[in-house]
Amino acid sequence: MDCEMVEGGKSVKVKGFRFSAVEAAVKKPGRLDLALILSEVPAAVAAVFTTNRVKAAPVLLSMQHAAGGVARALVVNSGNANACTGAQGMADAAETARLVAEGCGIPEGMVLVASTGVIGKQLPMERIRAAIPPLVNAAASRSMEEVARAIMTTDTFPKLETRQGEAGGKSYSIAGVAKGSGMIMPNMATMLSFLVTDAAVDPAFLDKAFRRAVDSSFNIITVDGDTSTNDMASIMASGMAGNAPIREGSPEAADFESLLSGILLSLAKQIVLDGEGATKLVGIHVRGAVNEADAKRAAMAVANSSLVKTAFFGQDANWGRILAAVGYSGAEIDQDRACLSFDDVLMVRDGIFVGGDAEARGTEILKKREFSVTIDLQLGSGNAVVFTSDLSHDYVTINADYRT
Amino acid sequence: MDCEMVEGGKSVKVKGFRFSAVEAAVKKPGRLDLALILSEVPAAVAAVFTTNRVKAAPVLLSMQHAAGGVARALVVNSGNANACTGAQGMADAAETARLVAEGCGIPEGMVLVASTGVIGKQLPMERIRAAIPPLVNAAASRSMEEVARAIMTTDTFPKLETRQGEAGGKSYSIAGVAKGSGMIMPNMATMLSFLVTDAAVDPAFLDKAFRRAVDSSFNIITVDGDTSTNDMASIMASGMAGNAPIREGSPEAADFESLLSGILLSLAKQIVLDGEGATKLVGIHVRGAVNEADAKRAAMAVANSSLVKTAFFGQDANWGRILAAVGYSGAEIDQDRACLSFDDVLMVRDGIFVGGDAEARGTEILKKREFSVTIDLQLGSGNAVVFTSDLSHDYVTINADYRT
Repeated sequence: MDCEMVEGGKSVKVKGFRFSAVEAAVKKPGRLDLALILSEVPAAVAAVFTTNRVKAAPVLLSMQHAAGGVARALVVNSGNANACTGAQGMADAAETARLVAEGCGIPEGMVLVASTGVIGKQLPMERIRAAIPPLVNAAASRSMEEVARAIMTTDTFPKLETRQGEAGGKSYSIAGVAKGSGMIMPNMATMLSFLVTDAAVDPAFLDKAFRRAVDSSFNIITVDGDTSTNDMASIMASGMAGNAPIREGSPEAADFESLLSGILLSLAKQIVLDGEGATKLVGIHVRGAVNEADAKRAAMAVANSSLVKTAFFGQDANWGRILAAVGYSGAEIDQDRACLSFDDVLMVRDGIFVGGDAEARGTEILKKREFSVTIDLQLGSGNAVVFTSDLSHDYVTINADYRT
Repeated sequence: MDCEMVEGGKSVKVKGFRFSAVEAAVKKPGRLDLALILSEVPAAVAAVFTTNRVKAAPVLLSMQHAAGGVARALVVNSGNANACTGAQGMADAAETARLVAEGCGIPEGMVLVASTGVIGKQLPMERIRAAIPPLVNAAASRSMEEVARAIMTTDTFPKLETRQGEAGGKSYSIAGVAKGSGMIMPNMATMLSFLVTDAAVDPAFLDKAFRRAVDSSFNIITVDGDTSTNDMASIMASGMAGNAPIREGSPEAADFESLLSGILLSLAKQIVLDGEGATKLVGIHVRGAVNEADAKRAAMAVANSSLVKTAFFGQDANWGRILAAVGYSGAEIDQDRACLSFDDVLMVRDGIFVGGDAEARGTEILKKREFSVTIDLQLGSGNAVVFTSDLSHDYVTINADYRT
């Protein structure tokens, strides 16, 4: 049974993968909270994990299991992060992998485990133990869209994206799901994202391409500046499209990486747009920094500034807060040279407000659901972009009451 | 005419200083927005300024004027930051200093200028020009408490503090005012603070002592992680108490520095408690870090985490978010050794929840207006404390609508 997804009304198949999702009652009743992605064959796997030094048990386990470069399955629960749970948490993550491996008749070391939800509570293992047989038995009965639903926490919509490509005359597909939507900050976030492809891909290239694509997607978004204990993104490549393995440096590799980047950037933007309480998706573009690192530093400071984000929510063209954030970012800035625009409306030229009707025109831009801020430092050739949301009342409401 | 302040019902005089405040209509009518502190004699001055690379015109001017180590006056407006205002802004700051100098008959280079308010708008100089003669004429007619009122922006109460000491048999006083209350982050914040003392203090010691006191007060608070373009703190010492100048290394120096630190820490805590929308003052104590820098890094990450701060607002004992913030702070942490307490209620021992009634008891602590969080990393002897506020609906309301 292949994966079927709808992309612009078009069904997309990813050969060799089966999907399952059940209600294990980790979350409130009536919601899918345990999902399985099963590869019919040993799949090449690449994965990246949170940079937080406090890592959840499933992250520590999956880091080991992904290191071999081959995986057969990924099991994920929402509603409980299994983080800060000590030895018991590690035992629970390992038991989850073992039960799935036994049920599917595959090696335990080829099962990745992921979790998302509240930190600090032990997993309700009796319920997860009971849910794994139906989860395994239902493999192939669910779609990847249901996996996207099962991993939601405060997300308001499931996030999925697909692309199709061709390598050596063989068509292949890539499909991915993701969840946000708080504790979103690069390197990585409370962000889970799982991709599958039926392309045959050289494992070394898959790893490199996946890391590069994550760097230019999930690692350039921020919702609240918090980096989670549980982040994980992975891709499994079944090879069942029948192409010769795609290797670094080939035209097929460039195509594959471009498609992969497109999926991840789309998922990343979906995460920001569905950020907790978010009403806007704002691209922060920094140009003309002394170098790329400075540009990223400046863009990230703007993207994480509570004052900037509340101004976005208030649709206030308060460009002064934006330049102030660049100023404390650590990036080089000559305050008499910086220019700033909202979309194509120039607000600041050489450090000062341009006057005229710019205030009114800038305010109109900020009323849009999506817009860009461009800061040109006029110092060098360093460019960067970061995507962020606004900071709204609902963010406070959601996070003040998250555990209740 | 000396400064008179009430401290616990006790009037405090600081000899040699006069105060004035008027309505210059920079802010809405009916609010003091232009203030003057005038020293009757050349006063030793020490000052610290924002580390933001985008610096307001008055900051750039006062950096020059304070460099001489002697000042006679400080003029400050609220309602307009005179930041990101280019050459015109510099000219306006200089003209303000010149007009005050002429009015008071003192050298222009001995006038410090400070501003706070909206970034990016030119000062309404015609109104400031008109207001300076009455400001100068009224010198001595106002109290330091009225200076505290005149520098308020979104502050809800004036912040002032006094101490009295003795040096060489002579009594002296120190008095200070401050304003917050958004863009509050160490090194420095949108924070203005002006102190006066009638003690005679060796300028070199005054500078060192003031910087150390700022480091352990204004530089360990955060409201929203944003560092402003306009921060400035200064102290003027008139010497009119008649003591022999206090020099580094003497018992009098230790006393003076202790009193100075006490005033600044009190003002710093007042700023946090009056942080935009704040309902709580929380001390984040990190102990047992591998070194002091790591401890500060960890404490600051916790203090700036939107997720932690919204949990404080929600009175949710969500310790997992706190350990997650330590984890991404860059500080060394062994997640199986960290301990965490709310006041004296131990929540986490060696990385895991202690269970029992800790949840209920921790929640009771979070209902308090002031409490502490202590994280013991059990790795070394590095300690640090940072004071922060919670993140509430009112923060969003205030900052979404700030300029309207």
